[in-house]
Amino acid sequence: MKFASDNAWGVHPKVLQALADCNEGAMGSYGADPVTARAEAVYRELLDAPEAVVRFVATGTGANALVCAQLSPSFGRIYCHDTAHIHRDECAAPEFFSHGAKLVPIMGADGKITPDALDQAIRFGAAGSLNDGANAMVSITNATEWGTCYAPAEVAALARVAHDAGLPLHMDGARFANAVAGLDCDPRDLVAGVDALCFGGTKNGALAAEAVIFFDPAHAKGFDYRRKQSGHVFSKQRYLAAQMLALATDGLWLDLARHANAAATRLGQGVTQAGGSLIAPVQANEVFATIPFGAHERARAHGAAYHVWQDTPPVQGEPVTVRLVTSWATPDEDVTRFLDLIR
Amino acid sequence: MKFASDNAWGVHPKVLQALADCNEGAMGSYGADPVTARAEAVYRELLDAPEAVVRFVATGTGANALVCAQLSPSFGRIYCHDTAHIHRDECAAPEFFSHGAKLVPIMGADGKITPDALDQAIRFGAAGSLNDGANAMVSITNATEWGTCYAPAEVAALARVAHDAGLPLHMDGARFANAVAGLDCDPRDLVAGVDALCFGGTKNGALAAEAVIFFDPAHAKGFDYRRKQSGHVFSKQRYLAAQMLALATDGLWLDLARHANAAATRLGQGVTQAGGSLIAPVQANEVFATIPFGAHERARAHGAAYHVWQDTPPVQGEPVTVRLVTSWATPDEDVTRFLDLIR
Amino acid sequence: MKFASDNAWGVHPKVLQALADCNEGAMGSYGADPVTARAEAVYRELLDAPEAVVRFVATGTGANALVCAQLSPSFGRIYCHDTAHIHRDECAAPEFFSHGAKLVPIMGADGKITPDALDQAIRFGAAGSLNDGANAMVSITNATEWGTCYAPAEVAALARVAHDAGLPLHMDGARFANAVAGLDCDPRDLVAGVDALCFGGTKNGALAAEAVIFFDPAHAKGFDYRRKQSGHVFSKQRYLAAQMLALATDGLWLDLARHANAAATRLGQGVTQAGGSLIAPVQANEVFATIPFGAHERARAHGAAYHVWQDTPPVQGEPVTVRLVTSWATPDEDVTRFLDLIR
Amino acid sequence: MKFASDNAWGVHPKVLQALADCNEGAMGSYGADPVTARAEAVYRELLDAPEAVVRFVATGTGANALVCAQLSPSFGRIYCHDTAHIHRDECAAPEFFSHGAKLVPIMGADGKITPDALDQAIRFGAAGSLNDGANAMVSITNATEWGTCYAPAEVAALARVAHDAGLPLHMDGARFANAVAGLDCDPRDLVAGVDALCFGGTKNGALAAEAVIFFDPAHAKGFDYRRKQSGHVFSKQRYLAAQMLALATDGLWLDLARHANAAATRLGQGVTQAGGSLIAPVQANEVFATIPFGAHERARAHGAAYHVWQDTPPVQGEPVTVRLVTSWATPDEDVTRFLDLIR
Repeated sequence: MKFASDNAWGVHPKVLQALADCNEGAMGSYGADPVTARAEAVYRELLDAPEAVVRFVATGTGANALVCAQLSPSFGRIYCHDTAHIHRDECAAPEFFSHGAKLVPIMGADGKITPDALDQAIRFGAAGSLNDGANAMVSITNATEWGTCYAPAEVAALARVAHDAGLPLHMDGARFANAVAGLDCDPRDLVAGVDALCFGGTKNGALAAEAVIFFDPAHAKGFDYRRKQSGHVFSKQRYLAAQMLALATDGLWLDLARHANAAATRLGQGVTQAGGSLIAPVQANEVFATIPFGAHERARAHGAAYHVWQDTPPVQGEPVTVRLVTSWATPDEDVTRFLDLIR
Repeated sequence: MKFASDNAWGVHPKVLQALADCNEGAMGSYGADPVTARAEAVYRELLDAPEAVVRFVATGTGANALVCAQLSPSFGRIYCHDTAHIHRDECAAPEFFSHGAKLVPIMGADGKITPDALDQAIRFGAAGSLNDGANAMVSITNATEWGTCYAPAEVAALARVAHDAGLPLHMDGARFANAVAGLDCDPRDLVAGVDALCFGGTKNGALAAEAVIFFDPAHAKGFDYRRKQSGHVFSKQRYLAAQMLALATDGLWLDLARHANAAATRLGQGVTQAGGSLIAPVQANEVFATIPFGAHERARAHGAAYHVWQDTPPVQGEPVTVRLVTSWATPDEDVTRFLDLIR
Repeated sequence: MKFASDNAWGVHPKVLQALADCNEGAMGSYGADPVTARAEAVYRELLDAPEAVVRFVATGTGANALVCAQLSPSFGRIYCHDTAHIHRDECAAPEFFSHGAKLVPIMGADGKITPDALDQAIRFGAAGSLNDGANAMVSITNATEWGTCYAPAEVAALARVAHDAGLPLHMDGARFANAVAGLDCDPRDLVAGVDALCFGGTKNGALAAEAVIFFDPAHAKGFDYRRKQSGHVFSKQRYLAAQMLALATDGLWLDLARHANAAATRLGQGVTQAGGSLIAPVQANEVFATIPFGAHERARAHGAAYHVWQDTPPVQGEPVTVRLVTSWATPDEDVTRFLDLIR
Repeated sequence: MKFASDNAWGVHPKVLQALADCNEGAMGSYGADPVTARAEAVYRELLDAPEAVVRFVATGTGANALVCAQLSPSFGRIYCHDTAHIHRDECAAPEFFSHGAKLVPIMGADGKITPDALDQAIRFGAAGSLNDGANAMVSITNATEWGTCYAPAEVAALARVAHDAGLPLHMDGARFANAVAGLDCDPRDLVAGVDALCFGGTKNGALAAEAVIFFDPAHAKGFDYRRKQSGHVFSKQRYLAAQMLALATDGLWLDLARHANAAATRLGQGVTQAGGSLIAPVQANEVFATIPFGAHERARAHGAAYHVWQDTPPVQGEPVTVRLVTSWATPDEDVTRFLDLIR
């Protein structure tokens, strides 16, 4: 019953197999190899973006921060949700890579920014003097940090607000697969209006691989140097590419995300039936909910691992707020057993 | 006949196997897993450094640049050889990570800095005003960028000069295994006096793994945050650690380095016999030599891959300067065939 | 009737005279001159801090950002009020100088942080993982951005919280003189517990001069290099020092601040009498208040300059929120005339 | 007999007077004042550059480093002379402001880069892989660090090489006035081909003022934010502008430079007559020469101040290499007296 993080699980066998499959002989290093070329092409095709620049890096923080540095000057303002991973959980990597860009948090229910809130924030930010810095970009996370999803129309609406202000839109897609699966939409529809996508592989069964995708090559100018200078170019690049290629093959990425999402959906329903209540709708692979104190005690006593999602320790008799994360590898029995325990 | 780079070759089967072996189930993320703990312990033991802080990252540039940022302020001077990888080949990553540190190149035969040259450079650097910046650290590469090795006594002598000036000594050990194998020494002797070691795995059969080792924990203060902020912490850290663990098991790292070195030695001897001449002694897995123009033409015509190591194109009738790099995977037949061709 | 900013006014005649007085002949450059030595000594004495390191720079943003870079690593968290100048009005200079430090805003009435709020913020910030970054320092502004003052006991209480958490305390004293004058306290009492003070001169009659003061020399390690690297060392340093020396002579700094504060006090009282109401108590040289719409129209019609301090334009019939700033040079007649107008 | 530095001298009386002249009343802060507007216009006119963006900062290091950050990305290569001030004497400020740009030194007689050497350096730099970084800009100093001058035709030739490679040309004109005076040329001719000029005021009689001039506004995009973020925007901007305005009025800047140059010329001639020899031609306000040991001893004994310009201490009986710098304020008697002493 491991619901602490989707990062806690391992690598899907097909991804491991892909590493072995490309292991023969010598190939060009630093990306000059056929596996990388093929993987880049496959992602361009997957997103129907023949002009896009696709690059692979090993970590989500690296991917996001590199995009921030690419799209924002040191004096830029990066608009994002108040709970955005880039703002709350990356040890100020965007600030470091960009050398000072200011992350401007925007509040919003269910981890989502509304077009109105974005519009207001951008206007307010731009109203001022040099003191404020310059508006630079907008970043959204999909699936969000609260396990919800922006639907294509919502992304497009935010893109319009951003573009009207002359700002590019970045999507942190560490759980992009979960969003596509949760929305049951075409991935191409979900990136309409997006200028830069970090397409996550790691949480979805890769060892350590993310694709950075710039839909307009103009946004990628100098990006290869930037990636190199930050130590995020692998000399044996084929093994990064092979992971992403394996996920894209035969729809594996969506199968895995669907499994994770289904487990979360079951957990969410079970929690409600057990007297808990959801804090945010379950639309991807995370459940944010309160559960009865007794349920929490029983679950913990039987070894269930998950995060208590409140600032203070649980109190006898009061509901406990928790986060449950499922993954491509979460066993169905674990879900069943957990739900039995908390019931 | 692939002698272009040791990065061009793949991953040793035992390393791949190690990835599979640690793939079962969920583990703590971001390094809180037993594989990482074991790998860190094994490297501390290997170097007889029970107090050392050991961390794993995926790239050599990441490893070196993080150490530079750790040991030098933005206004620091980093003394290194004129051909140092950190100075010539990392796209100014040390400057980026440290936010401005100045790499001060020192000339020296065979890619090596002499203690006298180091002493003079440090004194000259320190003589001045605020304009010069502050002396911060010394970095050497072992094996060097010219395929030579600093012996333990040479490292110790440089360490004395550095320490007398109050500066820590960093060793870029992207080819540390090749140095130990080439010198046939105890690795513990080769790091006596070293404050921070980047112990390379990637060139020596890993997929993408390097160990960063601080012998004095005081030098590692805040390093975990720095690594995180630069996107170099893997969420599934076990797979980084497993690679380095596989290399350290049953002396695999040395076996692989010895294989690479032996191939280079044969190449070096053959080149000499074929009328070429060595530019630097062959002490690790690289050969820098001139070969006759005709030999070069024949080799290329038969598909041999290697770098011409001169600024201008080869000229009919004149010796051609080349770099030949061997690896853990270089087939003996390739060496034989190449030598047959150039003879 | 210029109440837009204390920066809008010029240089006090005695400061200008001091520039002329030190203009004779050649002196050591970059701070190796007797004027600088004397000025540094005078500020050490003024604050009864014989060990302190005192340095002069030309701008408040430079002073604050240099201190942040000095006291926080790139991955540090800097706790400050939500309206702190370093957070809202310096174009992300602290982030730039520190290469990524995260400013963590804390809410609090009247522009002030309470010890409890600080304690909670630090605990919450420190509770987490590498993702959060490392707690690094606390910064307060005195007089605050809302024209209020922390009394010595309040500063000491915040210092205790900061120090208990191992964090140094920075005071942005762009209006330190106004705080001392407003509190009618001994400046030495107001810095008890403070580790680094930016003692403002510019807003208080200097041309462009601020003192950066580290009470513990250990905090100043490498600061001179940092100042040089950021272009904030004047070659003709004597003219920076002379300004601060002039202000410190015969209590000029306090006389000027008292004048400014008295004007603000009159304005505040007059606003209340005119049917307006204060948003924050007037304790230094700024008035934040609402005034009747008609009063605003009359004032503007007669050329009064000040900032409307609300996000939306003034509306007929509704009170208008304004900021009025007075300075060492604000003519008494201007205050009288303004109050006549709005009455 | 103060020949240590032109920074050691004070401020010209007309510059001081200009500070007093603009001291009346309140003006817009941060550059929104009429003095700044006028000064910007005057420099555009002086250089016949109606489209140019002109900004004022207080230090030469600030000016140069801001331009480097403006024209080079963090992964850029900045080509400059091996003795360039930006490379040798600014505490790695360009690296800090640009976040890592690599200064690539080029050797050349008399402190000057030849077009051929520049061409070769750029080609060599650009030949490589990501490892090298990206060619970004060229920087020359005029007058040079060796007291020589690039004539207009020389600047134009370097500009052609730079522009052919797609790189902008920066001129560090800390002693631009001395160059114009020494060459007796039209300043407009000396900037033909230059993209960014740092027009020095401080060494030429200002208190602390430099103009940064971008001839193509496209190069200045975002510069005001960058200047703000680095703390180089004065709140009372008028006093920066007033200094530069005073220098530009009635040709004061050229009169002062001519005075300094004439003193250097006399010194150079006298040194030769006294048995010394020039190391570089005297074309501006600096003399690099060897003088007899006895002459050195006599000069020092009588209080002459200047830098010994060799790495080792002077040796009895051997010529001593020295640097003598003159300024707008150097008394003729000092020159006479010094020459008498060394004769």
